[in-house]
Formats: sequence, structure tokens, C-alpha cells
Amino acid sequence: MFYYKQELINPIVPDKPDPAAAKVLQEILGGRFGEMRTMMQFFFQSSNFRGKAAQFRDLLKGIFLEEIAHVELVQHTINALLDDTGAGQAGDAGADGAPLDEAVKDGLPHHFIMGAQASLPEDANGNPWMGSYVYDHGNLAANLLDNLVLESTGVLQKTRIYEMSSNKALRETVAFLIVRDNAHQNAFAKGLESLGVDWAKLFPIPNYDINKYPECRKYVEMGFHNVQFNFRLDETRIAEVLNGQSPSRNGGEYSVVQPPEGHPVPELPERPNEHAPGLTDLNR
Amino acid sequence: MFYYKQELINPIVPDKPDPAAAKVLQEILGGRFGEMRTMMQFFFQSSNFRGKAAQFRDLLKGIFLEEIAHVELVQHTINALLDDTGAGQAGDAGADGAPLDEAVKDGLPHHFIMGAQASLPEDANGNPWMGSYVYDHGNLAANLLDNLVLESTGVLQKTRIYEMSSNKALRETVAFLIVRDNAHQNAFAKGLESLGVDWAKLFPIPNYDINKYPECRKYVEMGFHNVQFNFRLDETRIAEVLNGQSPSRNGGEYSVVQPPEGHPVPELPERPNEHAPGLTDLNR
Amino acid sequence: MFYYKQELINPIVPDKPDPAAAKVLQEILGGRFGEMRTMMQFFFQSSNFRGKAAQFRDLLKGIFLEEIAHVELVQHTINALLDDTGAGQAGDAGADGAPLDEAVKDGLPHHFIMGAQASLPEDANGNPWMGSYVYDHGNLAANLLDNLVLESTGVLQKTRIYEMSSNKALRETVAFLIVRDNAHQNAFAKGLESLGVDWAKLFPIPNYDINKYPECRKYVEMGFHNVQFNFRLDETRIAEVLNGQSPSRNGGEYSVVQPPEGHPVPELPERPNEHAPGLTDLNR
Amino acid sequence: MFYYKQELINPIVPDKPDPAAAKVLQEILGGRFGEMRTMMQFFFQSSNFRGKAAQFRDLLKGIFLEEIAHVELVQHTINALLDDTGAGQAGDAGADGAPLDEAVKDGLPHHFIMGAQASLPEDANGNPWMGSYVYDHGNLAANLLDNLVLESTGVLQKTRIYEMSSNKALRETVAFLIVRDNAHQNAFAKGLESLGVDWAKLFPIPNYDINKYPECRKYVEMGFHNVQFNFRLDETRIAEVLNGQSPSRNGGEYSVVQPPEGHPVPELPERPNEHAPGLTDLNR
Amino acid sequence: MFYYKQELINPIVPDKPDPAAAKVLQEILGGRFGEMRTMMQFFFQSSNFRGKAAQFRDLLKGIFLEEIAHVELVQHTINALLDDTGAGQAGDAGADGAPLDEAVKDGLPHHFIMGAQASLPEDANGNPWMGSYVYDHGNLAANLLDNLVLESTGVLQKTRIYEMSSNKALRETVAFLIVRDNAHQNAFAKGLESLGVDWAKLFPIPNYDINKYPECRKYVEMGFHNVQFNFRLDETRIAEVLNGQSPSRNGGEYSVVQPPEGHPVPELPERPNEHAPGLTDLNR
Amino acid sequence: MFYYKQELINPIVPDKPDPAAAKVLQEILGGRFGEMRTMMQFFFQSSNFRGKAAQFRDLLKGIFLEEIAHVELVQHTINALLDDTGAGQAGDAGADGAPLDEAVKDGLPHHFIMGAQASLPEDANGNPWMGSYVYDHGNLAANLLDNLVLESTGVLQKTRIYEMSSNKALRETVAFLIVRDNAHQNAFAKGLESLGVDWAKLFPIPNYDINKYPECRKYVEMGFHNVQFNFRLDETRIAEVLNGQSPSRNGGEYSVVQPPEGHPVPELPERPNEHAPGLTDLNR
Repeated sequence: MFYYKQELINPIVPDKPDPAAAKVLQEILGGRFGEMRTMMQFFFQSSNFRGKAAQFRDLLKGIFLEEIAHVELVQHTINALLDDTGAGQAGDAGADGAPLDEAVKDGLPHHFIMGAQASLPEDANGNPWMGSYVYDHGNLAANLLDNLVLESTGVLQKTRIYEMSSNKALRETVAFLIVRDNAHQNAFAKGLESLGVDWAKLFPIPNYDINKYPECRKYVEMGFHNVQFNFRLDETRIAEVLNGQSPSRNGGEYSVVQPPEGHPVPELPERPNEHAPGLTDLNR
Repeated sequence: MFYYKQELINPIVPDKPDPAAAKVLQEILGGRFGEMRTMMQFFFQSSNFRGKAAQFRDLLKGIFLEEIAHVELVQHTINALLDDTGAGQAGDAGADGAPLDEAVKDGLPHHFIMGAQASLPEDANGNPWMGSYVYDHGNLAANLLDNLVLESTGVLQKTRIYEMSSNKALRETVAFLIVRDNAHQNAFAKGLESLGVDWAKLFPIPNYDINKYPECRKYVEMGFHNVQFNFRLDETRIAEVLNGQSPSRNGGEYSVVQPPEGHPVPELPERPNEHAPGLTDLNR
Repeated sequence: MFYYKQELINPIVPDKPDPAAAKVLQEILGGRFGEMRTMMQFFFQSSNFRGKAAQFRDLLKGIFLEEIAHVELVQHTINALLDDTGAGQAGDAGADGAPLDEAVKDGLPHHFIMGAQASLPEDANGNPWMGSYVYDHGNLAANLLDNLVLESTGVLQKTRIYEMSSNKALRETVAFLIVRDNAHQNAFAKGLESLGVDWAKLFPIPNYDINKYPECRKYVEMGFHNVQFNFRLDETRIAEVLNGQSPSRNGGEYSVVQPPEGHPVPELPERPNEHAPGLTDLNR
Repeated sequence: MFYYKQELINPIVPDKPDPAAAKVLQEILGGRFGEMRTMMQFFFQSSNFRGKAAQFRDLLKGIFLEEIAHVELVQHTINALLDDTGAGQAGDAGADGAPLDEAVKDGLPHHFIMGAQASLPEDANGNPWMGSYVYDHGNLAANLLDNLVLESTGVLQKTRIYEMSSNKALRETVAFLIVRDNAHQNAFAKGLESLGVDWAKLFPIPNYDINKYPECRKYVEMGFHNVQFNFRLDETRIAEVLNGQSPSRNGGEYSVVQPPEGHPVPELPERPNEHAPGLTDLNR
Repeated sequence: MFYYKQELINPIVPDKPDPAAAKVLQEILGGRFGEMRTMMQFFFQSSNFRGKAAQFRDLLKGIFLEEIAHVELVQHTINALLDDTGAGQAGDAGADGAPLDEAVKDGLPHHFIMGAQASLPEDANGNPWMGSYVYDHGNLAANLLDNLVLESTGVLQKTRIYEMSSNKALRETVAFLIVRDNAHQNAFAKGLESLGVDWAKLFPIPNYDINKYPECRKYVEMGFHNVQFNFRLDETRIAEVLNGQSPSRNGGEYSVVQPPEGHPVPELPERPNEHAPGLTDLNR
Repeated sequence: MFYYKQELINPIVPDKPDPAAAKVLQEILGGRFGEMRTMMQFFFQSSNFRGKAAQFRDLLKGIFLEEIAHVELVQHTINALLDDTGAGQAGDAGADGAPLDEAVKDGLPHHFIMGAQASLPEDANGNPWMGSYVYDHGNLAANLLDNLVLESTGVLQKTRIYEMSSNKALRETVAFLIVRDNAHQNAFAKGLESLGVDWAKLFPIPNYDINKYPECRKYVEMGFHNVQFNFRLDETRIAEVLNGQSPSRNGGEYSVVQPPEGHPVPELPERPNEHAPGLTDLNR
């Protein structure tokens, strides 16, 4: 069973509204290599795990738990980037110059029409997330390799996005996730190390340069690339896999630690033009 | 952030393997009205909530938390029903009479070939789960009505499935979920009551007769149709909505209570023919 | 605007329930060459028509109108074939030997669980109908050629299905539709004839032998292969295209005639096990 | 069987071409809560209806018939908004500055390339319409509740769109449909009233203010929010449900009336650059 | 078995980067009437061919082989149009004004984030290519008619695209493919001629005017509209179908000839910001 | 450009028709880890390759070429397994006991109705192949890792299928492909070795035992697990990567060799009941 404390795993840094940034973060939320996939892939792999080597089941389940919090973080970052934009500027209904053009050109018609300026379970092209993204091969070596690929695409996509935008809300969330994907890459690589592989200097994939990404550097200096947060309220054998030398070319010791301190979940303002939440209407 | 204790929300009752039952439970897991949808729909609705009426946000989030545990329960029930079936009976590889025919006739090729006799994020027809199943209208009244429909389809589909099979593992899981969907129906109906609606004798939809479903009767007698389990580790305002007279024609008081006692998560045996998990191979 | 008289375009012949026949008719309803596609393809082509040659717009619209009635006919044929089968035989809920196995082996879990033993907008594999099936090329010659292909696939699929089953309900509906698809093939071929093409003996595609299909012979003898029914309540120029020698190798004169006499729409019995329609429950 | 008079259910008001408005109306045509869905959902629900309470079957079928005309109205509004735009301005083929950039930025490549500047069965993101959008639960209470949600999303999406654009063609069509969705919301709410529910002041959802939407006010003043048009050429029992006090907080009497007067279906000009319809070419 | 020489079937003409042109060419690559479809449709039709009339199997297979080279040509044209654009201009990571906005407005987030500025198997709306696009009816006349439609849509879409852009790289590739689609239209029309049809002046569909498309004129003057290239290393009976008078209204003799001379496959530069290919990183 | 010799890469061994075996091979053809995916994934990765390390581009392209022949081999194996089954046994059209039931229970309605008993671009559940299966990350290390996973799933799925059936046609094709997937696993592992990784005893994944699969043993004894066939008609640098010690725990030297001797492509008989190819009809 799953328990919850209403706290975000990382703070959302304020910056101006930026619908294009929100749009592109949809790839990180609902894209085929995004947080919804990692969350559901590790959920299925851990529930379907066979055999007695429960340290690997705990590895899969441990990272799954963090991915739910990643989904939550990206949802709220998208919401922050969408707010005070679009329809909110249109003023009264009869006004010319309403922002339909912009919503269309930013590829966001769904966000303003289907929902009320908020995140959706789809990618940056508007394709709905699909269960067929989830791979559970039922074989541990294949699953660990596949998860490695998945975390690598996480770093790849997020470093590319980071370089494309200077919006601070986008960059802070993305930088945190880059370092965490890096940590998970190391974790799955450790899993394969324990089966005999020597990775030499392959990781991280891609070999991103934290000097180009100051926000990443901050999280690396906090050691977030070489730890796994433990969200279990009971015993876990995850540390049997995750300990000792990090498989990263950058070295360090890998360890299992307590979750980071939480951050407040933002409260979104009402949007009367969107009839959201519409309670005022009902009490008129 | 999300925390976890490795316990199932309801026990899995032993019975003989039953691939057709596993197949049909895939609808409950990954179908368009299944547990993956309720989980993700309430996740998005609660993260995207607007305004200060946080008691409704807590209502959505509270039920979301339970739905994660429902997904986990159905995954494990499917796994129990698939095990010791299919490839496991084939004996050595060269034997005639291997069970490919059966896997095909039961519509389970993916379960034996893509995964290792385990649950998948798809429906009973093999269609992958889709993000477009998730509805977040961004308007509270519309969302509550929609969630009511969703919980009603839950009871509808599960009572239909219950009547089609006498497998005890299927029936116990399904009966528990019928009563919990009933409770969630009552919860969302309470939400609309607080906006002024009088439901008269409409609920439950459908008006299932617990005398036909002895397992359901057991859970109703435990009061599980008129409570919401609280998985929050911090404060929640959910009880501002969920209290007092139940909106069900069957009456009773609705209340928010502690989660039920947990049950052990089953350990699945290795399946060498499926190369699952394949660790033994690696140590040969 | 569209008007309606509650009458089927052809009678549904009684025969015993036959879930596999119902399953395969789903291809004719919701498959990529089925009646939902012809209906929507001709709807979009006629609404999007450009230019003054309105006789072609009326051709497209005229056949579209009949296709709505075809969709209705196939829905009701599927319902007739599903009824009194499956869950209906299960008796009381506690009985062993409930028919879940059969529903799964016939590939019909959706029909018994999601709906209440009734037709669905999907194909015989359970794939949902898709808007991308609809082709409107915006060029008349291309559209007429494409519609020819579509009607040919109609005859192909339905003659194949006819030969695979001896169920009388299936055969009567399918035979009527074979002859009507043949008539529409002739109609679109006439459209291209008026642009100069000489089809020689190409049609019908495929060159099905009505001696093998006695029900088809009946409809051919009624002349149904060389007429277009006119469902317009106002003027139409369709007869400017559809007149004179039929393009079929079997010859005859093509004409536009009044719709056939209608047949009663069947009333489906209640299914308490399916909670359908469930009104009795509400009045208990 | 279905009959037709070539008349639109509401006039298309002239305004300048507006591709972004056309794009966003695709959501209303082919989106998951659009007119194609309501049309097909009520078609399947009415054909699959069980039992003797035919007044409800007639309710479902009656609204289905109007939805076909809504699909037709939105197709023609999109076509009007697309015309004289895009490729039509490109002049001769060799000219620089051709409008590919604009078509791409408006998200309309399909409209200019696959079709000839005309409507498509897809949503505002370009996702094809899917049969899985159609819900027929096979239980009357669940279906009525679901249809209520659907009509509420209709009002929600259309009022949001109205506020985003000042294009008169878009606004007139959208305003008419808002009031009709409101009427259908009232109709399904009446259906549930007859099963005992008291809606208090819940409807309309959302509680849109007709003072903000002058075109809506016009249709409300014509009483279009409290009537159902009758497109049946035979008897119907729909008025057994739809009569007496409207369930809307705004009160009034609900009644079944004759269809509104029809309006001419626009004739679209030829587009030689699009080879549409291309007949001239053939006679060169 | 399939052999390969690393040469393009047509040269890629240099012009400035043009992301919108790249975007629209995705329709030609991965759209429902694009080169991936023709390639896979003719592959399946030829592998599944029945009977002894092998000249038709060789016709289908012969055109299939050319379509693989068309896919390759469009991939490389898209890559040429994307390069030196977007992220490449962003300069150092911390710079403001990074091109995320542009990538989003051009509908290209996938091209810059999921891949490294390169082609994808999807259409111009970002919808993934689907196997359901492939039609193999299993009947020769139906298949030939269908292939005719497909080649007609090829000419239609490409002439429309040609007129929308003056980019030389786009125009050269598109013009070559227009003339080749025209040749394949003639080839399938010949196939139906041999079954008796007289096409009169129907082809080409659409009746595009090569005077408007100077690049097309060049290829027509080279005779590319009335030849089929032969990529077989063994014997083929294709010339039994493809010989004599062309079915085009423009006349000429159709013949089977050697493939055209090849052109160098471009080498794409490294993109460090995209971590592509990332080898340098690994050797740091 | 691509050249062709009409020869299969491996012989099809005769055995009795086996529709369930054909059904399950659809996963190998059109499943998300099947031959269509490997073919298209390596096609896109090689066309989109960046930088001067052309030995890796040649590696990707070299394996792509073989995968086209694998697609062809599986298409023909499916066709062999379907023939003389199903509709072919139905005899005259009027006979009772026609095989619709069997086609439905084997999940093959599309194979008998949409096509004429032949292969389709879909998986064993009937889901169409999707372009979103293709991963090209634009980063060499990520692509090589991903391709490793893909080849591992190939071995996993095929060994599971092998054990489920004793049909000789299925087993021979599957065994050949197991060994070739193993060889490609070794090839991509070599690629990563050249970037520094030491795989120890990880490969093959899964660690299948050739003693259980006599047909595999035959191909291993022929050395097919440690060679790459060269289908290039020009120079290639592939051998710069593929040489020296095999990365497999089973050792051996890896080398690039000529393609194997070809095998005749089967000629499929006409199926008059399926109107395939239907030429006889046309000449009646």
C-alpha cells in the first residue's frame, strides 16, 4: 500500500509563464521516455518479479516509488509554466485579440480547451501516453539493460531541453531530474555490475558536462547522482545492490539515503474564464 | 512524495490456475474503465486542482492513493491466475503437445512470449492502455460527475465478471473491488451532494444484490462500502466532504478510517522455460 | 438535416445465437473497410466537395445516407447473434461452469463486460475504429477510385465471411450487403465512366458467383445490384450520373429508385445479469 | 432508415478566413468530447437499448439524430474558415514566400496536403478520432450520467473556445452548439429526474453567463435551451421524458418541437492549386 | 535477400535550413500515403502473392524495391533541411533566446529532443506510422486499383507541397518523387489494362501541369515518367506487364530500364549540443 | 539503393498447417520487438547517423539489410503455416460446419477476411505495428545499448515460442532467427566493447541452452552465432568493429562473411474461396 505526504521532491523556481516550455515538458511527463513510462515500467517489473533474489525486486520497486514523485513534480512544473498565460490575458469575452492564435501556434489547444490550463497525460506532439511503452521482459538482465537505456534517454532528452530554454522554472526541474536519472543509471548499472559487467568509462550516457549546467552542478555537489532515496516504510534489501564504488566514470560511493526534504505543493488560482474549478458559479 | 509498505490491500485467495480469468482481469487492470485509469485520472485531477476548496483536492488525492494499491492487487491476482499454467506444463522443449494452441485460444500470446507469465498494461482485448482514457475537465462538478460514471462502470464490469466465473481468486479480488468502487461512488456522490444534489435512490449504480455475491456481503458487513481509507501521512481535509449520511439507498454513515491491515505480497516462482528471472543461467 | 423512420433496411432472419458470427461481423461494422468507414468517408467527401458539379456531390451524399442504415443493420444483426448466449446461460451467480471461458475464447470479453451483449465500434480483433481510416483526397477522380476500392473490399470480405458460416442471420445480412456493395461499386464506376473510363469486364470485383450464394441471387433478381436508393427529401442530381447501361459485366440498366420497404427494429430483452437496462433494479 | 434535406441546422456567419479558428474547431468535430463522439455514442446506445422502456430509447435516438446535423454544421464551419487562406494565396507555383510556414505553424499540414483545405475526422492535435471514445455501458442510469458528462464537456470546451476568438463564424456556430448542448444536458438530466434525482441548482455545468455571450443569449431567448427538435418521421415516445419543468436552475418548461428552419449548405469554390475537384483538368 | 550500394536514387540539392519544410516532408515519409506505406504495402502484397501469374508478383516486388530507396531519399532530405537549424544556433547553454520556442512552433519537439535533429517514422502531425495503413486485399484487381489510388495520393500531396514552398532541397526531392509516382501510377494502370480496362484520358491523377513545375519537367524529359527501374539481380517477368503504349494521356512507350546513376549519401556533422553521436565525449 | 535476388535467407521446412503457430509468429513479424521493428530501427539509425566514425554507421546499416530478409522469411513462414487451413476446408459455400468458429478462436479473423490467408503487419494480438516502436536516440552509446536490448528480446521471445510448439516449420525459422539474433547481440556488444565495456559472461541474454534446441545447435555449429553476413555491393568498414574475440561467454572469433546460400521463395496456390488472386474469375 502507498502512503503520501503532500510535499514535492524539489522546489518549483518562479519565472514568467512560458507555454512553449510547458509544451516541451509534456514530453518529459507523457512521452515515450518520460516519467510516466519509468513509473509504470518499474511498477510492472517489480510486481511481476520472479524468484528469491529480492534485492533486485527492491531495487526496481525503490526507483518506481521515486518516479511517482517525479510525475508529480513535472505536472506541477507544467502547471506553473502555463498559468497567467493564454486565456487569462484575454480579458472579457467580447474582446478582440483573444489568444486562440497563440494557443494553436504553441500546440496547446488541448491544454486550454480540454483541461483548464493544466498538465495532460500526452507527449509534446499531443500523442496520448500508451501502455505499449512499458517494457517488462520478464528476464532480469534484459530488464536492467532496458532500464539503463531508459534512464539514458532521460538524461539525453533533458539536457537537450535545458539547452533550448533559459526559463528558470524549466531549468531547475529539468536539472534536478537529469541528476536523478543519472543516479538511476548508476543504480541499474550497479545491478549489472553485480552480474559481472565492467562498464569502464561508459557512464554517464550521454557524457554531459555539469560545468554547462550550473543547476546540475548544485545537485551533483549535494551528491544526488550517487544516492537512492528510500521511500519504504518497511525493510528493503536494496542496499545489497546499491553500495560501494559508483559505476560512473566520475567515481564516488553509492548509497541509500533518506528522501530529501519536501517542498510545498503550489496552489493554483481559480480561472473563471476556464470555469475552473467553477465553484463560485455554483454558489452565485 | 509517496511512501510504501510491501503489503497488499486485500488477500489473494488460492485457487487453481485459470488463464481465461487472468485474461478477463486485464480489463480491470488496463481497460478503459480499469484501475490504471482511475489511478491516473484522480492523479491528474488532484495535481491540476484549482482554487482554495482543498477539501475536494484532498478527496481526489485520497482516492487516487487507494487506486495505486488496487492496481497492485490486480497485477498480483493476474500473476497468481497465470502461474503453473501454460508453458510450465510443456515439460522439455522437444515434447509434442506444447501449449501454444491454448495460449493463442485464451488470447494470451503476449503474456507467455513478451513477458514471463505476468500482468501487462493492456485490456482484455490486448489493446494498450492509453492516456486519452484520462479525463480531467478542469471543472469540479464535471469531474465529480465523471468520476461517478467511472466508479459505476467499475461496479458494472466487476459484477458481470463475477457472475461469469467461479474461480475463487478472481471472485475475492473482484468482490473486494466492487465494494470499494461502491464506496468511491458514494464518496463522489457526497461531493455532489455538498453542491446541492439529492440523489434519492439512484445509488448504487448498478443496483447489485449482495445476496448474490457472498464475498461482497462480507465486505459490506465490514462496512467497506461506506468508508474511505486514509493513506495520508500529513493532514487532510477529506472528512469535510466525507461524513454523515451515506448517499446510498442502503443508508449508513460515511466516515474516513485507517487503511485496512495489509497482506503479504506473493513471491512468484522462477520459470526457467521463460528465462525468468534468468539469474541461475548467469551463474552456470 | 437528417430525418429518421425506425425501420431496418433489410430483415434480420432468425437463427440460433452464434457469438463467433457476431465477432466476425464486428469487422463489417467497425473494421477498416466496414460500414462505419464507408458512412464517414462519404460523409466527409460530400461535405468537403468543391465546385459546381453537384451531381457528384449528390452521388457521394446519396450513398452516405444508405451507409448509415447499413451501420444500423449490422449493429442489430450482431445484437441478435449475441443474445441468449453467454452470461444469459450462466444461471445463478454462484454456479460453476460460468461462461467466462467461452467469452474469452470467442474474443468477446468486451461484449460481455464493457457493454451488455451488444455491438461495439471496433473490428473483429477488438481494435477501435479510427478516423484515419477515412480518406478524402479532395480530388474527385482519386476519391471515386478510392471508393471503388472500398466497395470492392466490402464484397471481398463479405463473400469470404459468407462462405465461412452457415448461420442464417449472418448470411442474410451479409448477402444483402454484398449486393448493395456491388451496386455502389457500379455507382462509383459509373462516375468514372462519365470521366471517360471503359471498365470492360473488370466489375464486379471480386467476380463472385451468385449461384454459390442463393441469398445474393434473390437480391440480384430483385435488381438491387443496379439501383441506388434515394433517401433525399429534396431534389438531387444523382440520376445525372446513375442512369443507362450498368458498368458491370453482367449488364443491365442502372437507376435511382425509392428506398426499399422497411422492417421492424428488434426489441432486445432485458438482461438482469448484465444490469441492462437496470430499470427494474431502480424501482425495487 | 435515414432521410435527408440539404439544409444546415444553423447559418454560417461570414467572416474572414481564420486557420487557427478552423484548427481549434477540429476539437469540436473530432475530439474526444466532440460532435462525432456524441453522434456515435448515442447511435450505439440507442441501437443496443434493452427492454420495454422505449421512451428512453427514443430519447437517445432523438438526440443522436440532431448530432449528425451538428457534425455537418461543424464540417462546413471549418471549411468556411479555411477557405481563401493558405495555398490559395500562394499565387503561381514558382513564387517565393509560399505559405508552408504558416500551414505548419497553425498545425494544419494535413488540411492543406492530405485534403484540399477541408475538415478531417481528427482533433485539434491531429489525433484521429477513435471508436474507443464511444461509451455504451449497457445500463440506463450509467449511460444517462455519462451523457450528462459529455454534454457538460461540450459546454465547457465551447465556452472556452468562444472566449479565445472573436471570429464571427466561429462564435456563431459555437454559441448555437453551446445552447444545444445545454438543452441536451437538460434532456439527460430530465431522464435521471424521472429516476428520482433532484438536481437542485447544479445545471448548467458549467454555469456559463449568457450575458458574456450575446450569440448564446439570442438562442436562449428563442428557447433553444429547453427544447428538443424532433427529426422522426414516425411516432416517438420521447415527450414522455421531455416535458414539464426544466431541470436547469434557470427554470422554464421543456418541450419537444419541430426542427428549426434550415439554412443553405455553402458551395465551396474550386481550388486548382489543390487539384480540387480537378474536373477542369480532366476536360483540358 | 536484399543487397545495397550506398548511393541515393536522386541528389539532394543544397539550400538553407528550413525546419517547416522538414516538418511537412514527414508526411511524405511517415504519413498514411507516404513512402513507408508504399514500401510496406508492396512488400506485403508481393510476399503474399498467390498463383502462377508471376509477372504481377514481379511488378509488385519491382516497385517495392524502388520504394525502399525513396524512404532513404526522404530521410536524408529531412536531415538536410533540419541541419544547422534550431539547437545548433543556441550557442552556449546559458544563453537567453534559445530556440525552444521555434522548435515548438514548427511542431518539431520530437526532432530536437527525442532524436538528434533527424527524421522520424511519423507524419507531419507527429502521429506514428501504423501497420494498419498497409492494405493487402489478397485479390489482384483490388490490389492494383488500391495501388493506383496510393500513387495518385502521392502525386496529389507532393504537388500541393511543391506549391507551398520554394526551398530548393524540398522541391528537387519532391519533383523527382512526383514523376516517379506518376510512373508507378502508369505501371499499375498498365496492370489493369492487361485485365481489359481502357483508361482513356484519366491519368495522370491529378492532371498536374509540368510547366508549373520546372524540376518535374526535367525528369519527364529524361523519360522518368514512363520507365520502371529494375533492381533485381536475377530474372524478372515485370516487362511482360510494363511494355508498349503508356496509359497516360501524355502517351509515350513504357519500358523497364536499369536504375539511375547513384548520388552520394550526405555525411551529417556532429552535434555536441545534441550529444550526437557523442563519441568525443566518451574519449574525453 | 537496394537490390534483390528472389531467395530466402533460410529454407522453410514443411509441416502440417498450424494456424495457432502462424498467429504467434505474427508477434515475431509485427510485434513491438519483432523483425519489422529491428528493420526500421536500424534503417533510421543508420540514415540519421552523425559524424565520421562510419564503421558504426556501416554496422547499423549492415544489420538493417539482413533484417529485411528476416521480415521476408517470417512472412513466408506465416503463409506456409496458414495454407490449406481454414476456409480451404470449407468445401462448397452452403455446407454447415464452415470454419468461422476456428478462425475466431485462433484469433485470425483478419487473416481470413481482410487478406487471403496471409501475413499482416500486426502483432499476435492483432495490434497494428507502430512507428513509435522505432527508437533512434541520436547518441551512439544509447543506440547500441538499445539495440542490445532489442536483440535480447528477440532471443527471449523466440526461445519461449520454440518451447511452446513442435511444428517443424515454426521451429526451423525460429531457431535460425534465435542464432542470428544472438549474432547481432554479439555485434552490438562488440560495438560497446570498442567503447571500453567488458561484458564478462553476460551474453547471450537469455542464456539459452542449445542442447534443448537441436535446430539452434545446427546453426551454431555452422558458426552463424559469430558472423555478420555482408549484403553490401560496395565497400564497408563494418569489419573494423566486428573482428576478434566474440563477446559471448561461449567464445569464438567474430567475422564478416558472405551471405548464406539462398533458398527458393515458395509459390502459394490460388484460393478461389478467398478470390485470390481472382485472375481466373476475370477470364471467365
